[in-house]
Amino acid sequence: MKLIKLLSILLILYIYGCKSPEKQSANPAESPGSEKIALLPSWNEGPAKQQIMEFVRKATTEGDSGFIPVSQRIAVFDNDGTLWAEKPVYFQLLFAIDRVKDLADEHPEWQNEQPFKAILENDMETLSQIGHKELFKIIMATHSDTTAEEFRNIVNDWMAKARHPKTDRPFTEMVYQPMLELIDYLKAHDFKTYIVSGGGIEFMRAWVEDVYGTPPSHVIGSSIKSAFAVQEGKPVIKRLPDMEFLDDKEGKPVAINRFIGKVPVFAAGNSDGDLQMLQYSAGKVPSLQLYVHHTDSIRECAYDRESKVGKLDKGLDMAREKGWVVVDMAKDWDKVFMWEE
Amino acid sequence: MKLIKLLSILLILYIYGCKSPEKQSANPAESPGSEKIALLPSWNEGPAKQQIMEFVRKATTEGDSGFIPVSQRIAVFDNDGTLWAEKPVYFQLLFAIDRVKDLADEHPEWQNEQPFKAILENDMETLSQIGHKELFKIIMATHSDTTAEEFRNIVNDWMAKARHPKTDRPFTEMVYQPMLELIDYLKAHDFKTYIVSGGGIEFMRAWVEDVYGTPPSHVIGSSIKSAFAVQEGKPVIKRLPDMEFLDDKEGKPVAINRFIGKVPVFAAGNSDGDLQMLQYSAGKVPSLQLYVHHTDSIRECAYDRESKVGKLDKGLDMAREKGWVVVDMAKDWDKVFMWEE
Repeated sequence: MKLIKLLSILLILYIYGCKSPEKQSANPAESPGSEKIALLPSWNEGPAKQQIMEFVRKATTEGDSGFIPVSQRIAVFDNDGTLWAEKPVYFQLLFAIDRVKDLADEHPEWQNEQPFKAILENDMETLSQIGHKELFKIIMATHSDTTAEEFRNIVNDWMAKARHPKTDRPFTEMVYQPMLELIDYLKAHDFKTYIVSGGGIEFMRAWVEDVYGTPPSHVIGSSIKSAFAVQEGKPVIKRLPDMEFLDDKEGKPVAINRFIGKVPVFAAGNSDGDLQMLQYSAGKVPSLQLYVHHTDSIRECAYDRESKVGKLDKGLDMAREKGWVVVDMAKDWDKVFMWEE
Repeated sequence: MKLIKLLSILLILYIYGCKSPEKQSANPAESPGSEKIALLPSWNEGPAKQQIMEFVRKATTEGDSGFIPVSQRIAVFDNDGTLWAEKPVYFQLLFAIDRVKDLADEHPEWQNEQPFKAILENDMETLSQIGHKELFKIIMATHSDTTAEEFRNIVNDWMAKARHPKTDRPFTEMVYQPMLELIDYLKAHDFKTYIVSGGGIEFMRAWVEDVYGTPPSHVIGSSIKSAFAVQEGKPVIKRLPDMEFLDDKEGKPVAINRFIGKVPVFAAGNSDGDLQMLQYSAGKVPSLQLYVHHTDSIRECAYDRESKVGKLDKGLDMAREKGWVVVDMAKDWDKVFMWEE
């Protein structure tokens, strides 16, 4: 299971997190009282913003060589590290850990069964050494055995009370303000925007409509198997403890074709896991490919080639070779999070 | 493979087709010169039309007990036998047969290999007796081994030249005019409409945008596996000779949850294969469930409980028990096909 490969190092990282996750400093260039009606207001002037705006201007100008008919204006965004933060670990893993704790009363056997015992005892030493099989156990124990509706409620309840371990903010406030603006900007120009994430499709669907204004049908992700049943006269979708699809790397173009059925003309990601999605969209001309490069150790986290979560190595080389947009988070974003002063 | 079960009898039926597929007779009640600006103009006044219009009136009236917020207005339609005809056999099977003939030159071995030999020799006797394994061979040989883009072109080329064996019309003209009007009517009232069919997802996507005004992302169907590759510098989705998902019966609600992520409030089908989809939507209150009942032996085909294609038996009982809308094609539709005079 590739999902497990992805996750296997996360618990280790949970201990160390990001190197410099200090509190954000207000950007002195911003004058709080001024009314900004500019487009993409949280983006600083520079090559990234310029490339995006020029692409959209041409895409929406009939007769221009870069014109794209409305029916072809499909934009796809990775989620973890592209639309919201992914440090110290994917937030979905924190959900799984909290859920193990919530379910512990119903599973007295977990007191003596790894990896649950380690989670319940906050035994990071043991957790950092568990293998694929144990991680798979965590995901299945926390993500299945409910109906789809119940699972959404569980996620939303968690979202309402859980807080980011470093910022103490709700996770829904850990989204990147410039990316929200970019989604709105593209929508205003008749692009259909989709989220295409390695994260769980139902985990995301629970909250994305409120946070990104993206309906569930525009969310593509990894999934476990499910089945239809009528339980006590009520029709339900049951979530089964078995992986169905991992929406990462080569999986992303496959899922885009399956769900959307058109090749995107705009693709944004932040890691090598997004490379194939960006390559796929580059098959369309005109099109725009964008990498969010985590360069900001002050306001967020600085990481790329050596990072185990959100590794950007091959993708960075490809981006430079092909002239894709590389967003330098430290330079290109006036604001990272909406709550920065 | 359930798909094979579905298809296994189709070749037999191909020989017999519908009992009474005679040319349509113009409906004497219709006066050709009169300008109709009524809603659902090809629907006769009666309980079916009344139930539909009342449901939509209430769904769109704020404060009404039947009001449905726009974000919840999801409508799903089966395709074969619901939006277009399915006799003498599913049109996709005719595509597969024609494609075997088209590919025969590249496969000289087919001259001596069943079931291809029987298709190439129009040997209906042999074809009517082939089993699941042979049918699987036909589908895989004709639906895989291309890129997604190539397959769409192949389907569109076929659609442009193929003709229905009884009416001699292009298959895109074998759609039911009243159902096109129903889709438009729902769209005009801010419903999002989806096709949820046992047919191949890529087979349908090739032409539905032109014919139903439904984008590929709103088409859900059965699928074979696929993979991403970069071939000679060009990113492609390769279609693989292996079943991925059968979108029939219990599969329909599962696929609706996977693709749309919301429970529909309007579901239309015509066979027992749609029953679970209708049951699933009935979990929402208010909602409307609709069966197209093939009662018209003159203008189309009369079939239900005994039919092997489009069998409507359990569904008809359930519809009567639950008070679902049952469209009596002979009585409720002023016109079946758009080209009727």
